[in-house]
Amino acid sequence: MLQTIEVLGIIAFALSGIAEAQRKQMDLVGIYAVAFMTAFGGGTLRDLLLDRTPLFWVEHQEYAILVLGLTLLALLFPAFTRIPARWLVLPDALGLGLFSVAGAGYAQAAGTSLFVASIMGVITGVFGGVIRDVVCNEIPYVFRNTHWYATCAFIGCWIYLLLDLFGVTSVVALPVAVGSITLLRLAALRYNFRMPVSG
Amino acid sequence: MLQTIEVLGIIAFALSGIAEAQRKQMDLVGIYAVAFMTAFGGGTLRDLLLDRTPLFWVEHQEYAILVLGLTLLALLFPAFTRIPARWLVLPDALGLGLFSVAGAGYAQAAGTSLFVASIMGVITGVFGGVIRDVVCNEIPYVFRNTHWYATCAFIGCWIYLLLDLFGVTSVVALPVAVGSITLLRLAALRYNFRMPVSG
Amino acid sequence: MLQTIEVLGIIAFALSGIAEAQRKQMDLVGIYAVAFMTAFGGGTLRDLLLDRTPLFWVEHQEYAILVLGLTLLALLFPAFTRIPARWLVLPDALGLGLFSVAGAGYAQAAGTSLFVASIMGVITGVFGGVIRDVVCNEIPYVFRNTHWYATCAFIGCWIYLLLDLFGVTSVVALPVAVGSITLLRLAALRYNFRMPVSG
Repeated sequence: MLQTIEVLGIIAFALSGIAEAQRKQMDLVGIYAVAFMTAFGGGTLRDLLLDRTPLFWVEHQEYAILVLGLTLLALLFPAFTRIPARWLVLPDALGLGLFSVAGAGYAQAAGTSLFVASIMGVITGVFGGVIRDVVCNEIPYVFRNTHWYATCAFIGCWIYLLLDLFGVTSVVALPVAVGSITLLRLAALRYNFRMPVSG
Repeated sequence: MLQTIEVLGIIAFALSGIAEAQRKQMDLVGIYAVAFMTAFGGGTLRDLLLDRTPLFWVEHQEYAILVLGLTLLALLFPAFTRIPARWLVLPDALGLGLFSVAGAGYAQAAGTSLFVASIMGVITGVFGGVIRDVVCNEIPYVFRNTHWYATCAFIGCWIYLLLDLFGVTSVVALPVAVGSITLLRLAALRYNFRMPVSG
Repeated sequence: MLQTIEVLGIIAFALSGIAEAQRKQMDLVGIYAVAFMTAFGGGTLRDLLLDRTPLFWVEHQEYAILVLGLTLLALLFPAFTRIPARWLVLPDALGLGLFSVAGAGYAQAAGTSLFVASIMGVITGVFGGVIRDVVCNEIPYVFRNTHWYATCAFIGCWIYLLLDLFGVTSVVALPVAVGSITLLRLAALRYNFRMPVSG
């Protein structure tokens, strides 16, 4: 179940990485590298922090090949680059939900405390995008103008962890948490939720 | 003993991260993220490099909650943001001393050679600030205008390692080394010590 | 054999890091830090991803001392800084070849699949330069204007992996693969090979 969620999240984030790299006029290798780091960055950091081995993409070479396939598809069909930026909002929100909840689940399975599991979920969800932005030489989106980006992940991880704590089966808890993050993120963008800025 | 030092270092560095993030007009989530990375970045890299598991902040959830508390305090009391930058010099110098010596001590306990232990101490002391600056899209302070920043850490780690080598108890060696780094750093700023630049 | 290759690669990359840091007017500590990260960044990430412990430079303190020696030499002999940039092309191409093939070899020895071993080789070869550029606050060279930089590493790793698969001894396969990457890279620069850019 966590694995199915992971594959969907990889596709969603790889697409967001490809779109960003194309906007920066990168070539095939640059696009693949950015897609790779966006798709695998969060999960890699999570696995390193939890000392899970082998890494998920080292164990499953089909993940890295999948991202290569998406990259080649994007280059072969230039129409892909004309996709409006707002169409990427849904896969990105979905990827955020999928990765965050998977990260919290793996952390919990590794025996961490609840608060650390929720932080690990947020790291898994947002870190791929942070690397993408650092590599593209920008202050990471998630710190600048968050519209609750990390906050959605944090809330959704707690929804999953609390449902699980009260004995709800993961077949129910996982989709509910992923859906909450995705919908909350879309609502935050639509209605312009903001976190307090110090002043 | 190493642990008490660690907690004090976390507080010192979290405060420096919060102040930097507030200067960049980040919101609650951004401030917490920067404080978190500044406070835990050096120790996390050290633990990854030494393969120590579980990570210190994964094991102690109270560390991450402590940084969250400091972040909320900073947002609730806006007076905090009006603290002049030079007041941050002392906690930062103290954090540098505390983290560097703790890092060298952990490396030594993991059985590394003396030179590698001293490098590991420097990495532990300065890496949190490097991440903070990279994330804020600047060339890390420690590389630009060091005023002996990393050098103080390097010298203090050797003081600790040599005292330990000659059989001095850590109850004496640790505070002496931490104090040396802090005072040397303050002196370097006051009297404008510089390292040679090639030219 | 992999180890001899590694030492040569460390020297080649440390020199490229020193030259870059001197161009940015860094001081002794900054130069050492950039040289250190350029020389050890790729191998460190590889060892973390493959969970190899202890890290190669933690085990061999002479590597870190070697880079310190090169840094001091560069500062003592200012003529070093007047080396024209194009003279750095050969050590860099050689370092790329040496590190990439060593990385693929270590990955294979750790039991990864062929595709993951080739990716791990590319990461080992290019990541030091990526860190160098991120720390110097630039979009990594390898993503901007690659002239087949990562592509040469990718092709050379496959040459090594396929030769090895067909039973060729590593005394032959390693030098052939390293030479292929170095020559291909020099040819790519000379004849201006480019990867396709989407558009």
